[in-house]
Amino acid sequence: MRIHVINPNSTASMTAQIGRAATRAASAGTTIDLVTATGTPSSIEGYADEALAVPPMLAAIRAAEARGAMAHVIACFDDPGLSAAREVAATPVIGICQAALQVAVTLSSRFSIVTTLPRSVPIIEDLADAYGAGRRCRRVRAIDLPVLALEEDMDRSHALIAAEIHAARREEGAEAVVLGCAGMAELCERLTQETGVPVIDGVTAAVRQAEALIGMGYRTSKLGSYAWPNHKAGGFAPEAA
Amino acid sequence: MRIHVINPNSTASMTAQIGRAATRAASAGTTIDLVTATGTPSSIEGYADEALAVPPMLAAIRAAEARGAMAHVIACFDDPGLSAAREVAATPVIGICQAALQVAVTLSSRFSIVTTLPRSVPIIEDLADAYGAGRRCRRVRAIDLPVLALEEDMDRSHALIAAEIHAARREEGAEAVVLGCAGMAELCERLTQETGVPVIDGVTAAVRQAEALIGMGYRTSKLGSYAWPNHKAGGFAPEAA
Amino acid sequence: MRIHVINPNSTASMTAQIGRAATRAASAGTTIDLVTATGTPSSIEGYADEALAVPPMLAAIRAAEARGAMAHVIACFDDPGLSAAREVAATPVIGICQAALQVAVTLSSRFSIVTTLPRSVPIIEDLADAYGAGRRCRRVRAIDLPVLALEEDMDRSHALIAAEIHAARREEGAEAVVLGCAGMAELCERLTQETGVPVIDGVTAAVRQAEALIGMGYRTSKLGSYAWPNHKAGGFAPEAA
Amino acid sequence: MRIHVINPNSTASMTAQIGRAATRAASAGTTIDLVTATGTPSSIEGYADEALAVPPMLAAIRAAEARGAMAHVIACFDDPGLSAAREVAATPVIGICQAALQVAVTLSSRFSIVTTLPRSVPIIEDLADAYGAGRRCRRVRAIDLPVLALEEDMDRSHALIAAEIHAARREEGAEAVVLGCAGMAELCERLTQETGVPVIDGVTAAVRQAEALIGMGYRTSKLGSYAWPNHKAGGFAPEAA
Amino acid sequence: MRIHVINPNSTASMTAQIGRAATRAASAGTTIDLVTATGTPSSIEGYADEALAVPPMLAAIRAAEARGAMAHVIACFDDPGLSAAREVAATPVIGICQAALQVAVTLSSRFSIVTTLPRSVPIIEDLADAYGAGRRCRRVRAIDLPVLALEEDMDRSHALIAAEIHAARREEGAEAVVLGCAGMAELCERLTQETGVPVIDGVTAAVRQAEALIGMGYRTSKLGSYAWPNHKAGGFAPEAA
Amino acid sequence: MRIHVINPNSTASMTAQIGRAATRAASAGTTIDLVTATGTPSSIEGYADEALAVPPMLAAIRAAEARGAMAHVIACFDDPGLSAAREVAATPVIGICQAALQVAVTLSSRFSIVTTLPRSVPIIEDLADAYGAGRRCRRVRAIDLPVLALEEDMDRSHALIAAEIHAARREEGAEAVVLGCAGMAELCERLTQETGVPVIDGVTAAVRQAEALIGMGYRTSKLGSYAWPNHKAGGFAPEAA
Repeated sequence: MRIHVINPNSTASMTAQIGRAATRAASAGTTIDLVTATGTPSSIEGYADEALAVPPMLAAIRAAEARGAMAHVIACFDDPGLSAAREVAATPVIGICQAALQVAVTLSSRFSIVTTLPRSVPIIEDLADAYGAGRRCRRVRAIDLPVLALEEDMDRSHALIAAEIHAARREEGAEAVVLGCAGMAELCERLTQETGVPVIDGVTAAVRQAEALIGMGYRTSKLGSYAWPNHKAGGFAPEAA
Repeated sequence: MRIHVINPNSTASMTAQIGRAATRAASAGTTIDLVTATGTPSSIEGYADEALAVPPMLAAIRAAEARGAMAHVIACFDDPGLSAAREVAATPVIGICQAALQVAVTLSSRFSIVTTLPRSVPIIEDLADAYGAGRRCRRVRAIDLPVLALEEDMDRSHALIAAEIHAARREEGAEAVVLGCAGMAELCERLTQETGVPVIDGVTAAVRQAEALIGMGYRTSKLGSYAWPNHKAGGFAPEAA
Repeated sequence: MRIHVINPNSTASMTAQIGRAATRAASAGTTIDLVTATGTPSSIEGYADEALAVPPMLAAIRAAEARGAMAHVIACFDDPGLSAAREVAATPVIGICQAALQVAVTLSSRFSIVTTLPRSVPIIEDLADAYGAGRRCRRVRAIDLPVLALEEDMDRSHALIAAEIHAARREEGAEAVVLGCAGMAELCERLTQETGVPVIDGVTAAVRQAEALIGMGYRTSKLGSYAWPNHKAGGFAPEAA
Repeated sequence: MRIHVINPNSTASMTAQIGRAATRAASAGTTIDLVTATGTPSSIEGYADEALAVPPMLAAIRAAEARGAMAHVIACFDDPGLSAAREVAATPVIGICQAALQVAVTLSSRFSIVTTLPRSVPIIEDLADAYGAGRRCRRVRAIDLPVLALEEDMDRSHALIAAEIHAARREEGAEAVVLGCAGMAELCERLTQETGVPVIDGVTAAVRQAEALIGMGYRTSKLGSYAWPNHKAGGFAPEAA
Repeated sequence: MRIHVINPNSTASMTAQIGRAATRAASAGTTIDLVTATGTPSSIEGYADEALAVPPMLAAIRAAEARGAMAHVIACFDDPGLSAAREVAATPVIGICQAALQVAVTLSSRFSIVTTLPRSVPIIEDLADAYGAGRRCRRVRAIDLPVLALEEDMDRSHALIAAEIHAARREEGAEAVVLGCAGMAELCERLTQETGVPVIDGVTAAVRQAEALIGMGYRTSKLGSYAWPNHKAGGFAPEAA
Repeated sequence: MRIHVINPNSTASMTAQIGRAATRAASAGTTIDLVTATGTPSSIEGYADEALAVPPMLAAIRAAEARGAMAHVIACFDDPGLSAAREVAATPVIGICQAALQVAVTLSSRFSIVTTLPRSVPIIEDLADAYGAGRRCRRVRAIDLPVLALEEDMDRSHALIAAEIHAARREEGAEAVVLGCAGMAELCERLTQETGVPVIDGVTAAVRQAEALIGMGYRTSKLGSYAWPNHKAGGFAPEAA
């Protein structure tokens, strides 16, 4: 199985971290086709960063599909361009937020999310609503650290996230916590062990879900919302090569 | 990986069909521990049938866990006893309705469900609401055939379901269809091919999701809703052996 | 009028307390047919306890119907098996949570609920959502005392509940409070008097609602969701004797 | 028990019909204090009619409270002025729409409503939403007859309503039907018998609920939303005499 | 353009303040037809005050329409009688709450509302829900000052509101704040400047929206909900002169 | 007042049509700064087209802001990039869908939307949900004509839209209809006259709303969701020149 994992921002060190998490998650026999988007912002913090990241990411998805990708993972917790990506791909496209939330509702009845910057809180709240998490998503919390600062001092990042996990357990009765940034993936296991709270990482969840969907032979429905783009000047070719 | 697949009703021929679908879905290296519940109704059509099926099913889950099950699949589309099962198991428990809907929202933006009897329509509508499908679940349709009649004449069943799939496509713009009964699992592939609409079967989806969760090492959160039952007369032992 | 009040757990002292509340609530001319379920957990704290309690409770409902019950009250605040009970009974079945919430929204615009254990909080939140309380249910609070400990020291229980009522008034502006456990029924009047907040007990509410429905001559609709169970091996007989 | 039943419109023949339904619904020992509002529109069809009806109705509620009313029933299906009435009364105030819907969700899982004019459909839809009926209220239907034409030819009214009940059963699977106008109350029993669908009348439901609330000794919460009006020029006196 | 601005309460000094805000908001060429309702409560604090204010307000709207009003602004934040007013007017009717919320969701993604008395909090919460603000309305806060006390000491009022704005920013991340009382209109600009938070006043918003709707030539739809009242004794004339 | 109206697709004839509608909508003294995005798809039909259109559109917004734009109108009914645009602009940004829906809920209580292609139906349904239209948006209808075919034969387009408006009136009781494509703007008046149903065009609504917001002196909140982009490689400059 060949899974395309795309980091929509242009920071290679973050891609590397995502790649390590994806590789650890992958089953034997799975190949991770790891890509850093080019010409996109160095991190995705807000709507404009997302908007700039999406067109190169869609091109990368087309290219990966041509290389034989059997599923795609968008490794940014805002799930930027997820619906658009489903339009331009024949194979399943998975957002790490949607995948993580699907795991969270299977393992727990009430969970919280811990992200980086406060400006991402409403974005993720709206995503959780759109994905139907409803009351099950108790709260979205922020450690108030920019995305790229996460990997500067992993111990500090760990401490900040752990503090929010403990607060989520104590204040809102969270039964599990979802990490709200792809750049937190490598901290997942240690956080689970040290806090005693099940911590869920979207990169891992998405890679596993990709394997599951490939194994089932499912492809994106081309009847309606995710139909191939219509042919037009300036648009994507209606069908992948 | 060892996955416990339990048919909560007591009809062995239906278990056999579920087993064939589960086995086809499973990856190499996965063992399906297939069980028919005993002392439960011969089919599950409505709330009372569900209620009678759950206690034996929970006992079967405990027994399977003792035999080394690493995840459990409840192979009935009403997801009977799903929350209770999560309380009595350390490992993940997956309902085929919840699993199928998670696949449906990944592959499409609008889908319908086709089930057996009209009396199951409100039950499944409420499940879809509880799982957050919202507007994405366009409609729950019924072919008006009892569960056990499904396998009496598979060609007739196929024809009835196919007619509803075409109607779902035409009338409510369904982009995918979920089969709303475990007894329909074997028809899935043929229906997809003949209707041209992606058709999703919950047994397949749940087995694959079980493998994914086992692979990630996740277990049911024991902090809150799904904590072990409290010790008491007449209750389950607080923790599995 | 003959009203069947069933305590789904197997603790006779709790049944006795429920019986005192039911009797106090009943009008002249009403007979309370008070029953303790047999073979069920000694208290209902979580989903698995509920699941184990329901089949014996359904059998008790059938038996009571044969004895001439004109309505049934399920005296556990989780409303376990409420839909199933409606399937197996011709006469109305009332859950004390649903009945209490119907009173709460008639007397106030914003209310809170006080229950026993924290693990019951999400269960009751989901019930309140399912019953459409929405924003009117401000919060579900727990005193963190097991159900059976309630009656060990009624003064302590009273103090703990009163403290939560005051907090609900102060912190979330609750205009009324619903007692979230059948075992709290006898404290209702004293709590209202001492806190100055209208306190609503579900046993009382359900008995009165039962009288109202009997008086109107209404019976459970057998057209659809609550139709008699279909005839099958291992299921309930399709219709009560 | 003394229950004040107020017809907010000024048509005495309609009050008489409401009175007959209320009297039939009342238990032995209950006195119906039946009042026609004065100076209000002759029927309530839309928002402006409601607005004009409410101030005289509130005055009538105050007057009835002074005469010893222990509960109030607003006998118009739009529940006009329900929240305001709760402010000016110490005793419970019941709207026939809210009461009927509480009965409907107890007896069925999916119901429809049949009202008079199409212009009332969105009004009642919004009420059902506000009361949390959600998906349980399948549809609001109109027979397209003005309120006062209902009693001109009761056989025709019966036939029109029966036709909608049959359509509700057939088209949206309604398991029960609520009559969406106080002027339909007397047709309730005959409609149930002839259609085989449980038909619910709000006047009956409200009178019985009033008895239940009086019996429990509950009063409207004066802590918050329904607190006595503040003292001011042009307003109601803060507390009833 | 001639815009009718009606203060539904009978306090002339408050009308004067509303008039100053309306005049400041109006474009050159716009005439503000400023009216104090007569025979209504001196302030609107709760449901009963609203109910008493509406009929005179509707009469004022009819009168203003006859004088040539091209749109109407109801200058009370509870939007009393808004739907009824739309029935009796041919031209657009704007509630200051609905108008302010439309501005708030255009300028921000999360906002809070600051009103006068705690008893208005649930009223405004329900309005915000009905208008679809959903999660975007973070919280409704109260300064616990009666409406008429607002103008007694404008500096104190300013200080109390400013404190709530700062709290809304700090505690719930409000990105903008809506003033939840027409009597706060004149404080809007100073509050924005001193708190650094965009503060939105409904009177200003409504006057500007009225100009926009007049400019577009839109009128209230008379097809359905807001159709002219039906002709009847005690009702409004079906159509304005 | 200077209002920047941007057509996010690259078809100049469509921009011209939008410009004519915008100019007709504008008050005396308003300058329309009309721009066609460059390097974007020739029409926007689906998520991928949207994604490709947004980055050039954001650049155009920055450029227009530098030229003195006091507000921006995104003239595509999917409101592509609306949140991102609010991040990169100091002045208000208005989407024609959001603006049209705000007008629709002011003039009516139930409305429908008529768009071009069926694939846009779920997109617009989700927008209407996100904007809180809820039950007020009865249905989204499609005439099944590509965006660019609209202007090929305006009489045919008119006929197709008129047929859907009549159907919306008849089948779902729509009280008003919103045109779900910027390319329909010029048909608005004629459709209103010929169908008798109020028809709302988003371009007109947005231009008028822009004037209103400019007149009030409001600017986009920079506290939270729509804060300036953070400084980073590949991102927008944190603040406009």
